[in-house]
Amino acid sequence: MNYRMVLYILGWVFIMEAVFMVPSCIVALIYGEDAICAFLITMGISLAAGGLLVRKKPQNRIFYMREGFVTAAFSWILMSVVGGLPFLFSGVMDNPVDALFETVSGFTTTGASILTDVEILPQSVLFWRSFTHWIGGMGVLVFLLSVLPGVTGSHMNLMRAESPGPSVSRLVPKVQMTAKLLYGIYIGMTVVQVILLLLGRMPLLEALEVSFGTAGTGGFGIKNDSMASYSVYLQVVVTVFMILFGVNFNLYFLLFIKRSKQAWKIEEVWWYFGIVAAAILVIAWDIRGIFPNIGEAIQQSAFQVGSIITTTGFATTDFNIWPETSRTILVLLMFVGACAGSTGGGIKVSRLVILLKTIRKELHQFLHPKSVKKIKMDGKVVDHETVRSTNVFMITYLMICSFSVLFLAFDGFDMITNFTAVAATFNNIGPGLEMVGPVSNFSMFSNWSKLVLIFDMLAGRLEIFPLLLLFVPETWKKF
Amino acid sequence: MNYRMVLYILGWVFIMEAVFMVPSCIVALIYGEDAICAFLITMGISLAAGGLLVRKKPQNRIFYMREGFVTAAFSWILMSVVGGLPFLFSGVMDNPVDALFETVSGFTTTGASILTDVEILPQSVLFWRSFTHWIGGMGVLVFLLSVLPGVTGSHMNLMRAESPGPSVSRLVPKVQMTAKLLYGIYIGMTVVQVILLLLGRMPLLEALEVSFGTAGTGGFGIKNDSMASYSVYLQVVVTVFMILFGVNFNLYFLLFIKRSKQAWKIEEVWWYFGIVAAAILVIAWDIRGIFPNIGEAIQQSAFQVGSIITTTGFATTDFNIWPETSRTILVLLMFVGACAGSTGGGIKVSRLVILLKTIRKELHQFLHPKSVKKIKMDGKVVDHETVRSTNVFMITYLMICSFSVLFLAFDGFDMITNFTAVAATFNNIGPGLEMVGPVSNFSMFSNWSKLVLIFDMLAGRLEIFPLLLLFVPETWKKF
Repeated sequence: MNYRMVLYILGWVFIMEAVFMVPSCIVALIYGEDAICAFLITMGISLAAGGLLVRKKPQNRIFYMREGFVTAAFSWILMSVVGGLPFLFSGVMDNPVDALFETVSGFTTTGASILTDVEILPQSVLFWRSFTHWIGGMGVLVFLLSVLPGVTGSHMNLMRAESPGPSVSRLVPKVQMTAKLLYGIYIGMTVVQVILLLLGRMPLLEALEVSFGTAGTGGFGIKNDSMASYSVYLQVVVTVFMILFGVNFNLYFLLFIKRSKQAWKIEEVWWYFGIVAAAILVIAWDIRGIFPNIGEAIQQSAFQVGSIITTTGFATTDFNIWPETSRTILVLLMFVGACAGSTGGGIKVSRLVILLKTIRKELHQFLHPKSVKKIKMDGKVVDHETVRSTNVFMITYLMICSFSVLFLAFDGFDMITNFTAVAATFNNIGPGLEMVGPVSNFSMFSNWSKLVLIFDMLAGRLEIFPLLLLFVPETWKKF
Repeated sequence: MNYRMVLYILGWVFIMEAVFMVPSCIVALIYGEDAICAFLITMGISLAAGGLLVRKKPQNRIFYMREGFVTAAFSWILMSVVGGLPFLFSGVMDNPVDALFETVSGFTTTGASILTDVEILPQSVLFWRSFTHWIGGMGVLVFLLSVLPGVTGSHMNLMRAESPGPSVSRLVPKVQMTAKLLYGIYIGMTVVQVILLLLGRMPLLEALEVSFGTAGTGGFGIKNDSMASYSVYLQVVVTVFMILFGVNFNLYFLLFIKRSKQAWKIEEVWWYFGIVAAAILVIAWDIRGIFPNIGEAIQQSAFQVGSIITTTGFATTDFNIWPETSRTILVLLMFVGACAGSTGGGIKVSRLVILLKTIRKELHQFLHPKSVKKIKMDGKVVDHETVRSTNVFMITYLMICSFSVLFLAFDGFDMITNFTAVAATFNNIGPGLEMVGPVSNFSMFSNWSKLVLIFDMLAGRLEIFPLLLLFVPETWKKF
């Protein structure tokens, strides 16, 4: 382990986090809120720690995958710890575990909250809460590296640890260039959403916060009823943008550089829209009796399907009381998740497509034991390593799920609550069913359970292995 | 597809099934029951069909894996269809789907029932119901092949399709010899259990039926309260034998041929006993308040843990009303299942051990990307093919689980009922939680849902692929 290099990058993360708090300070200034002190103190601490760590550039530039994974894991933990301080300093929360839970939920774009009443929060704190979604959506390390030209060579290993998906066709050549373009698309789409929300007469601050939550597929509500009181127009805008932010960004990238033929070949996107459409129709049919007409049922169904499959977690209605078929479909969608290379969480559509193709290949192998069939995706052969690691990912995913549900059971709540709480955090969605349904929150869990869920949120966002590696003693060997 | 060869073997299955009904006829004779007609008619049909099919030995002896898998799948379906006829002919049931459900549940050693009151059944039908467990426990095809010397060459491919487990260390040399020894152990252990039950003053017929249910890890109750009214001695005997029948039979085999050193090296068995012991202790502690003393809590916990992990499914108490921690542990144990090479179902302990080792290997690979580490089991290297197929098995398993839960949701029952109904059938256990809990049954499901559960039971017993292969058009190509 190259400790110095890891600490050096962590130093920059500290500094960056302080910079990220500037907008919240401005909000506090505008609204004349005392919470500005909470932010200023946090920024002071963060800058001091960061300054200390980046004082000297490390000589040893070795940066393998283990360094990448450990740096990614620690960056996210550190950002969450620091990011939670304003909640404590401003007096909004008094339990440090709660503050950590809320910030991890923010950065990992989960959107699960322990707050019962968000409308009493200072505007600046509410803004910070939504802003963490936007930061977390695209990841911070790749951003850091695209602006800091000093630390070259470590890009790939950091990007691998932070970017979601099974790396079927990552846009690897010219990492920095690609990263900048992707951030450009991200910011551009957010701006368009803000404008469309403003046209629907949403106040600017709210439009920003809602857009941050949508773009990062986060889902922190800024009203106690999440999105239920918004007009149909606003709900439709959010629906469309949630679904768009769940699309593989490679599509936008390829369209942007005018390679549309290649863009439409991305199989994952077709599957994604197919699943979304099928789920919307089945659920709309299932809930048609609850709403005055089929049109409204479709609109509500589309919002909820978009919200869950992209792992955003906004709610316009209490889908916990929907019929069992709809509830089951939503729970399954929680696991499916968005496309790889989007800001969404979950298992990812492309992983599932690879797994389905693996099963088909296995059946083929039984019929023709000696034939060698390759799995193809987007017209290209998926290399053996990707298939293998997708399998292992899936299995690790399952085991962590099972153990988390078991740990939560000690709190004594019902099984659906526990199961969907794990599903909603591990897949970075937010609300689950029953006691963690869209009109409830996670405050009733014990601190131990909250720590398990914090682990799940981070593991979900970093796709498990960077976090698991922290628990392997060998990781910490010096060389 | 070598249709003639497949049909030839199916012919023998027909004949064998008729022979298997002889004991039930004897019971009917002793008790002077009209149900004897139901059995005699079924036997007539079965013998006629069988005789027709085995008339001519096929010339083409080609028997690949596809033939093995298709034969296995059809044998089990056919046995279940024929085996369900006595239920219909005797007037015990009038819905053919129910009769099929009950027989599939019997042969696959699931033990899920659609009967509300089993105590009003004719003795001969009750005996047949339990006897199907015993037949299904060890599998019929291997038995068939060990007595029919004519169809050599096809052993391996049939054994592969019917024997449970990831084939870590199958006892392959001298298949016929091994098969006979294993059946010997199976019969021997059953006889010992019957004797111990008789010593506890259980009537002979009941002792036979309970032993069949234990040996096959089936779990059909012959009383409406399953095992609750039996004495502590009888419950303990059943507990011990359930756990023993969940052990990898290779252990007994190796002990029998006096290679005890090698026997104790079977890792799976150690894991199995470890999990059983840990689960018994945690659950006993969790339910200590429900029972008068900790001793009884341990006894009840041991019975239920043994019943669930071995996928037997007997019940001494309504564990559906136990606290959440215990319920969650039991649900997890449903998936764990017994050892490979036992009569139990589920994912199998050895598969999970291999998967855990795969995860450890993956973490190691992140730290040392260029190293090549092999997964070892019982001190031997597990070949790549086994690891891969274990992964694929797990993923297919998951997908079938998800789709089954989704199908069941259309019936509108609660999610725990649906989820545990699938878990209990797919893992060949029997009772689940809530509406399919140990004091309930599966009768309330629609015919469609019952067909899904029938598929799950067969898929669980045959370890998925033989059954899935039936849905691949290519399987049916002639050569």
